[in-house]
Amino acid sequence: MHEINEECGVFGIWAPVRGDVARLTYYGLFALQHRGQEAAGICVNDEGIFNYYKDLGLVHEVFDNARLDSLGRGNMAIGHVRYSTSGGSNRINAQPVVVRHIKGNMALAHNGNLVNSYELRRELENEGCIFQSTTDTEAISYIVTRERLHSDSMEDAVCSAMNKIKGSYSLVVMSPSKLIAARDPRGMRPLCIGKNENGSIVFASESCALDAVGAKFVRDVLPGEIVVVDMNGMRSIKTHCGKCDPALCVFEYIYFARNDSFIDGASVHEARMRAGEFLWKEHPVEADVVIGVPDSGLDAALGFSRASGIPFELGLVKNKYIGRTFISPGQAERENLVRIKLNTIESAIKGRRVVLIDDSIVRGTTSERIVKVVKEAGAKEVHMRISAPPFLNPCYYGTDIDSKENLIAVHHTIDEIADIIGADTLGYLSVDAAKQIAKRAAVDFEYPLHYCSACFDGKYPTEVPLEGSKDRFEQKIPAEWKEAHTKK
Amino acid sequence: MHEINEECGVFGIWAPVRGDVARLTYYGLFALQHRGQEAAGICVNDEGIFNYYKDLGLVHEVFDNARLDSLGRGNMAIGHVRYSTSGGSNRINAQPVVVRHIKGNMALAHNGNLVNSYELRRELENEGCIFQSTTDTEAISYIVTRERLHSDSMEDAVCSAMNKIKGSYSLVVMSPSKLIAARDPRGMRPLCIGKNENGSIVFASESCALDAVGAKFVRDVLPGEIVVVDMNGMRSIKTHCGKCDPALCVFEYIYFARNDSFIDGASVHEARMRAGEFLWKEHPVEADVVIGVPDSGLDAALGFSRASGIPFELGLVKNKYIGRTFISPGQAERENLVRIKLNTIESAIKGRRVVLIDDSIVRGTTSERIVKVVKEAGAKEVHMRISAPPFLNPCYYGTDIDSKENLIAVHHTIDEIADIIGADTLGYLSVDAAKQIAKRAAVDFEYPLHYCSACFDGKYPTEVPLEGSKDRFEQKIPAEWKEAHTKK
Amino acid sequence: MHEINEECGVFGIWAPVRGDVARLTYYGLFALQHRGQEAAGICVNDEGIFNYYKDLGLVHEVFDNARLDSLGRGNMAIGHVRYSTSGGSNRINAQPVVVRHIKGNMALAHNGNLVNSYELRRELENEGCIFQSTTDTEAISYIVTRERLHSDSMEDAVCSAMNKIKGSYSLVVMSPSKLIAARDPRGMRPLCIGKNENGSIVFASESCALDAVGAKFVRDVLPGEIVVVDMNGMRSIKTHCGKCDPALCVFEYIYFARNDSFIDGASVHEARMRAGEFLWKEHPVEADVVIGVPDSGLDAALGFSRASGIPFELGLVKNKYIGRTFISPGQAERENLVRIKLNTIESAIKGRRVVLIDDSIVRGTTSERIVKVVKEAGAKEVHMRISAPPFLNPCYYGTDIDSKENLIAVHHTIDEIADIIGADTLGYLSVDAAKQIAKRAAVDFEYPLHYCSACFDGKYPTEVPLEGSKDRFEQKIPAEWKEAHTKK
Amino acid sequence: MHEINEECGVFGIWAPVRGDVARLTYYGLFALQHRGQEAAGICVNDEGIFNYYKDLGLVHEVFDNARLDSLGRGNMAIGHVRYSTSGGSNRINAQPVVVRHIKGNMALAHNGNLVNSYELRRELENEGCIFQSTTDTEAISYIVTRERLHSDSMEDAVCSAMNKIKGSYSLVVMSPSKLIAARDPRGMRPLCIGKNENGSIVFASESCALDAVGAKFVRDVLPGEIVVVDMNGMRSIKTHCGKCDPALCVFEYIYFARNDSFIDGASVHEARMRAGEFLWKEHPVEADVVIGVPDSGLDAALGFSRASGIPFELGLVKNKYIGRTFISPGQAERENLVRIKLNTIESAIKGRRVVLIDDSIVRGTTSERIVKVVKEAGAKEVHMRISAPPFLNPCYYGTDIDSKENLIAVHHTIDEIADIIGADTLGYLSVDAAKQIAKRAAVDFEYPLHYCSACFDGKYPTEVPLEGSKDRFEQKIPAEWKEAHTKK
Repeated sequence: MHEINEECGVFGIWAPVRGDVARLTYYGLFALQHRGQEAAGICVNDEGIFNYYKDLGLVHEVFDNARLDSLGRGNMAIGHVRYSTSGGSNRINAQPVVVRHIKGNMALAHNGNLVNSYELRRELENEGCIFQSTTDTEAISYIVTRERLHSDSMEDAVCSAMNKIKGSYSLVVMSPSKLIAARDPRGMRPLCIGKNENGSIVFASESCALDAVGAKFVRDVLPGEIVVVDMNGMRSIKTHCGKCDPALCVFEYIYFARNDSFIDGASVHEARMRAGEFLWKEHPVEADVVIGVPDSGLDAALGFSRASGIPFELGLVKNKYIGRTFISPGQAERENLVRIKLNTIESAIKGRRVVLIDDSIVRGTTSERIVKVVKEAGAKEVHMRISAPPFLNPCYYGTDIDSKENLIAVHHTIDEIADIIGADTLGYLSVDAAKQIAKRAAVDFEYPLHYCSACFDGKYPTEVPLEGSKDRFEQKIPAEWKEAHTKK
Repeated sequence: MHEINEECGVFGIWAPVRGDVARLTYYGLFALQHRGQEAAGICVNDEGIFNYYKDLGLVHEVFDNARLDSLGRGNMAIGHVRYSTSGGSNRINAQPVVVRHIKGNMALAHNGNLVNSYELRRELENEGCIFQSTTDTEAISYIVTRERLHSDSMEDAVCSAMNKIKGSYSLVVMSPSKLIAARDPRGMRPLCIGKNENGSIVFASESCALDAVGAKFVRDVLPGEIVVVDMNGMRSIKTHCGKCDPALCVFEYIYFARNDSFIDGASVHEARMRAGEFLWKEHPVEADVVIGVPDSGLDAALGFSRASGIPFELGLVKNKYIGRTFISPGQAERENLVRIKLNTIESAIKGRRVVLIDDSIVRGTTSERIVKVVKEAGAKEVHMRISAPPFLNPCYYGTDIDSKENLIAVHHTIDEIADIIGADTLGYLSVDAAKQIAKRAAVDFEYPLHYCSACFDGKYPTEVPLEGSKDRFEQKIPAEWKEAHTKK
Repeated sequence: MHEINEECGVFGIWAPVRGDVARLTYYGLFALQHRGQEAAGICVNDEGIFNYYKDLGLVHEVFDNARLDSLGRGNMAIGHVRYSTSGGSNRINAQPVVVRHIKGNMALAHNGNLVNSYELRRELENEGCIFQSTTDTEAISYIVTRERLHSDSMEDAVCSAMNKIKGSYSLVVMSPSKLIAARDPRGMRPLCIGKNENGSIVFASESCALDAVGAKFVRDVLPGEIVVVDMNGMRSIKTHCGKCDPALCVFEYIYFARNDSFIDGASVHEARMRAGEFLWKEHPVEADVVIGVPDSGLDAALGFSRASGIPFELGLVKNKYIGRTFISPGQAERENLVRIKLNTIESAIKGRRVVLIDDSIVRGTTSERIVKVVKEAGAKEVHMRISAPPFLNPCYYGTDIDSKENLIAVHHTIDEIADIIGADTLGYLSVDAAKQIAKRAAVDFEYPLHYCSACFDGKYPTEVPLEGSKDRFEQKIPAEWKEAHTKK
Repeated sequence: MHEINEECGVFGIWAPVRGDVARLTYYGLFALQHRGQEAAGICVNDEGIFNYYKDLGLVHEVFDNARLDSLGRGNMAIGHVRYSTSGGSNRINAQPVVVRHIKGNMALAHNGNLVNSYELRRELENEGCIFQSTTDTEAISYIVTRERLHSDSMEDAVCSAMNKIKGSYSLVVMSPSKLIAARDPRGMRPLCIGKNENGSIVFASESCALDAVGAKFVRDVLPGEIVVVDMNGMRSIKTHCGKCDPALCVFEYIYFARNDSFIDGASVHEARMRAGEFLWKEHPVEADVVIGVPDSGLDAALGFSRASGIPFELGLVKNKYIGRTFISPGQAERENLVRIKLNTIESAIKGRRVVLIDDSIVRGTTSERIVKVVKEAGAKEVHMRISAPPFLNPCYYGTDIDSKENLIAVHHTIDEIADIIGADTLGYLSVDAAKQIAKRAAVDFEYPLHYCSACFDGKYPTEVPLEGSKDRFEQKIPAEWKEAHTKK
């Protein structure tokens, strides 16, 4: 059960001839919808004129036919889907950010999270910049356009900007005549390149979005690489490549990404299968069936089943009609209404010893509820296996892993957790195994599959944000106000 | 891939104490959403006062918190989700139908289809009745309330009405003081009974709706049975029971119902697994993987895999964010954009001989497209297996199986169909096998699992509607008008 | 200030050639919007096929371009705007009522109120009729269609139905080939006929709707007359004419109707001017300016000014942006925020003796507030003049005059009322004068301007509804329910 | 008939105790709705935390109760209503602009138009500023916050900013602890101060907004004055006062403002009355009635009637239900459907010689249509009188007077115009008279009623924008793009 959220998906398309790039972006974003369900936006570039629309909601809620038509035809377009933790949901934070600067228009979409936001904003504000949103993306927009003042081209400006921004970022940038993709030097967030039959170039967070628009996967953008497309073709700037080790986010494989995507050369589905195999090797158990918690637990369950020989079963089914406006039961009713969103298939469970595969345990309450319904459906035993290591540290790179005090694994041993959630046994994937789940079909990659493991072991690949710097963006009663009101 | 649609789901709840029955009905309907996505409605009975709301849309679109609150608290409620074939979509056809008659209020929700609608409406109109919708349900409402004029009770009126209405029906009827469930004598559509911890009685089309509201499954309503609940408890009227053989709809097992439901004592999930086993026995094949077309093909694929020993794989993934307002690609784009709603997991398919399990082939175009993408993902062979027999005849009992001229199996041999859809081999479930897929855990049922097989073999268990009688309800330019306009 | 509401406006159009009758009906209803702001509906007849849509909201809220387009083109259309007293607002009560009966389709729109609704519904229910709304219109639909069973034509059915229905009604009825208008024998509600350049015939509650669609006024429908239009032209049925005295509603002149309408041959604007003249004659006063409370008080103020020689002034201005969703100030704030909807023009009032003309006093609270703001704006004296007699009795004919206990004039003398509302003097129009305000330009009318004066003097021109019969339609906890719940 | 539009209304409130300032701002904006119907926004300051919402739509469309509640309680709030010429309608341009800068939050609302926007934006962009909207307001926000870097206080920053921004502006600025109002040195747009019983200070574009929130008018903000309110009370900064002659916009009196407002000490209603008197003196005529085109022509008609002795009449009536979503008739239908929005009262017009008073003629087409319907209603003669001089030049100060090529008075003599619009005679107010219409009750004002007359005589009180500078903000295909696409 997803309890952790990715914070965005980006998409961009450059077409050799003017066409309905808005609709293609719509389909691309639709394929990336799982990366962000809070807001969506599309900006179309029609001979240098930028038409855009963005709002809160799912892609198909924000855009209807009339809205897409109003964006017109064009040569390029970029799009964005956004997730945000509760509270920060505000229309002003929707992307792409579209700005006018001294050299013309620029649109920018960003997936990731900067670790030096506070310093950057402070510096920019000291130079007279004003901010209308609380996103990193607005800061990046400032930095890129300010670099553009002294640069020969937009790609040079992006390149210079990358000297200043720190953290994780996969960017798609659109100028009047160019489409530019850039990935942070550690490659923390995915970004790939595709090509259409008619020669259109597509950038997307995941390869499933290429499939959705009929584009063939070309390759991933390298960690640190800048890729530029315009009428002169596609070219690459590698100034920032190879200066540090990759620190890919292993959670993209474990559950952020769709299982039909390839990321950094490896199949997400296979990675999850392999996680299941490792789970069997590290935490074998005698049981009658293996059941995955939908959706992302299914692949790992299949892997566990294959490795162990214990039959795979469909034992849990998610209601697929849950929408944004679904009314969740109140606290009082929750106890009795656990089976609204996720129900058991009793005939698959009853009288059996069940291996239950899920992708994570955050606070433990969701797992507790799932184990309970599985037992109520007649499971004789429930052996919980988690296809990820325990969370012990916050993530600063674009996911919303809960703060330390809420992470159950920080406060309890594995046996205690098993006890709390009511499982007969519990096993997590080891950090070592997690780093080995993804495998590339081909071997001639320019960069190895090295992962960030900070959320498991606290080894952050970059500096981390200043203590309390986040409060700067969240509004607190400011000193100025307090002073003014005590003066009297 | 669902190409055939069920036409409704019904829900009813009777509570011993006044409470938030509207919200419980909301959750019940939410669990039945797959049975009808066009319209939804809830009617609450608060001490005899009926408050209701119904509109086009999904349950969570029609009802928000304010709307549910406006229905108030009550002792009973009934609800309905509706599907209708394109064109007939009109708010006036939403259910429940709520009417005032000489004895008070009545609300009625109906799943099924009458075969003598035309005759009934004609007769009623001759007696001065007027119709505001094109539904059978309004006719049933008339008949029940007219019988009520000469009956001692609402349940007697329902019982008398059942002498007149012919076809398939699962009804939930609410009077000021009673909640009544009734099922046609052949039990063509499902209907079951559940009970809450606090003594509430629940009726629902499928048991998954009982789970959603925390009710325990009690039993199915018998074919022909009328079940009444009021302050005096629950009682049964069996006047119409046992007068004809059951003719349950086997398609409820094959794909209408949710796989976590039990229908007439048998698990839907198990029935689908068994369909897969039969498919292996009837159409064995050498292959590397078995892949189900989501969602309903997954269970059958698992059964096929178990029986054959060929590994089960997740090879196709549906985009779960498809909503009512999703903009489908236009005809021109469709060729390139097949993978928007359903994409392949290439790593599960590439280089493999694939057994592909789907639940039906109607026109053949969908199957053709799926086979194509599976082959493009690198499948060496595609062996299509269908977990149902070929459709050869229209259904008059509440599903929208296409008219005969559009059914591919009417015009082509199985080999021809395999050719058309591009499969290397093709196998359908036999009619005999279809009748054996469902099995009850217990054996002491009052009625056997006998099925309607009309859509496969043309043996209709009832009379069929008069030729062209449907046109009566669909508006055609009437003679009166033509006459009047040629007169001049 | 309007405190009493008309309950509907009707519109119908018959065109010699198929065309965009939906849009014309839209404009017609838009002109009649002041007669009902709760719901709107249009039904188009395209060669006998009826397409309709109706919902809660203003005309321009219910219908957008897509909605109008969906109604298609046609030969005829009817429309309706509805007002209802608070509480009875329900989508099911929107009109036109569209039904299918044994002879085809019928659509019906109604302005007025029956006095024998209860008896009619009771009788119909006894014969097995069911009701889905709480409107008189559904009862009328039943009666007309039942008469149609034994009649040669729809107009004959309407004619027979008029023997049964009692009270006020202006009806527009549409059959597959005919458009029919009918007015109750007393002509209590208005209804007029217009004609377009292209030969289209239009029926409307007020002549302003004819202007809006470019039609010329032909004449009013006579009290008791039935007018039929079809391919054979327009003809009149006068069976019900002349059997009783006209009892036109004088309040149509005083404030229901728009001042640019002609009703029963007389100008509404002139009638209001004349009411002002009578007010001067009956209640002269020394003053500096005459100010009308917008909107309907303006005409009377102008008449008072002309007759008295006291200058007319614009001293009060209404905020014209008040919409249905405007948030009115809460009770606590009301005291300070009286000038949100209606503000004073201080420069017109300050230091002056003001004659203030309004169209009615119901409870007195509104008048009290207006007098207060006028005084606060600096008026030295405020002399209130009301262009209608005091309300002393309820109306059963389609307006929502408050129940007797809330009518200030029932409980207080005129001097007391002046005191309560804070006016220096107060004068009402006499009943005699009220009956003389309307004057026809031409004298050769078939019926005289005789008025219903029941709300002033209690002389009802028809029988009145049985005591408490209204409760029958409003849901009360029924005996059946109570009995059932005490039985146990 | 309004054919020219004001471009905004501003409102601000400072309360001594925390309260529901959002709702008060809602009512204030509601009173200013006539100044801008395209977008609305409110920003609440709660102890330094800024909560805001803005969107396209009328005030009552943008804000419902839930939305207002979500803004919370606070000590201060500012609000804005916006009009924009067609095309420029974009949510991003809605106000107030809310930004974070180095010293905290700032919200800013602006009525007016800068003449050096282009230069300012160019300069700011050169310094690395980026723009997300096309409004002057974003530029002003930059300048104020950049000045704030080197200033001791927000009011000092505003004062310094006023050295840079040129043109017309009435600003309301909110910092964490202060509410600031500022008016350009020529006082081109109005701005006034009010005070509540509880000591709240209110700033508003027009005094009618003070009335709406129960505040008493205190005085107008002086041309060039900055007024600051905080916990230390209200104080004034007059650095920019008296350095140039006032150039008040006379059109505020003629028709932008509501007739119940006082502007710069003079009553709008009286000014319009006086315009009518002057019209009589300058263009006397023999006639039977004087009719004003609603709404703003009514006051002038009354003045003309008083001066001439010709009776005032209500001869034209506007449909008051026109909303944003009203569907206007298409070009083809327009000829026949002129009387949808504005209808004649025939009984007031027929057989009479009519003086028709309107507030302006822009292109002439509207006037032509009005004269036509008045003649069709039976007017023997139509003498058109315009309560403003002819438009001959564009306005750069915040109204949307059409471009020169569309102004009828630029291309035709008055006689020709009379001919074109079908009037028997035509008279405009003289420029001299226009400058004398407003009169103050008191004489001790610090600034005289001197007007801008640029639109009549081309004497612009400030420099004017560079030729074509507006194109800079409207997107044109940029050189960069063209170059890039021809390069290849």
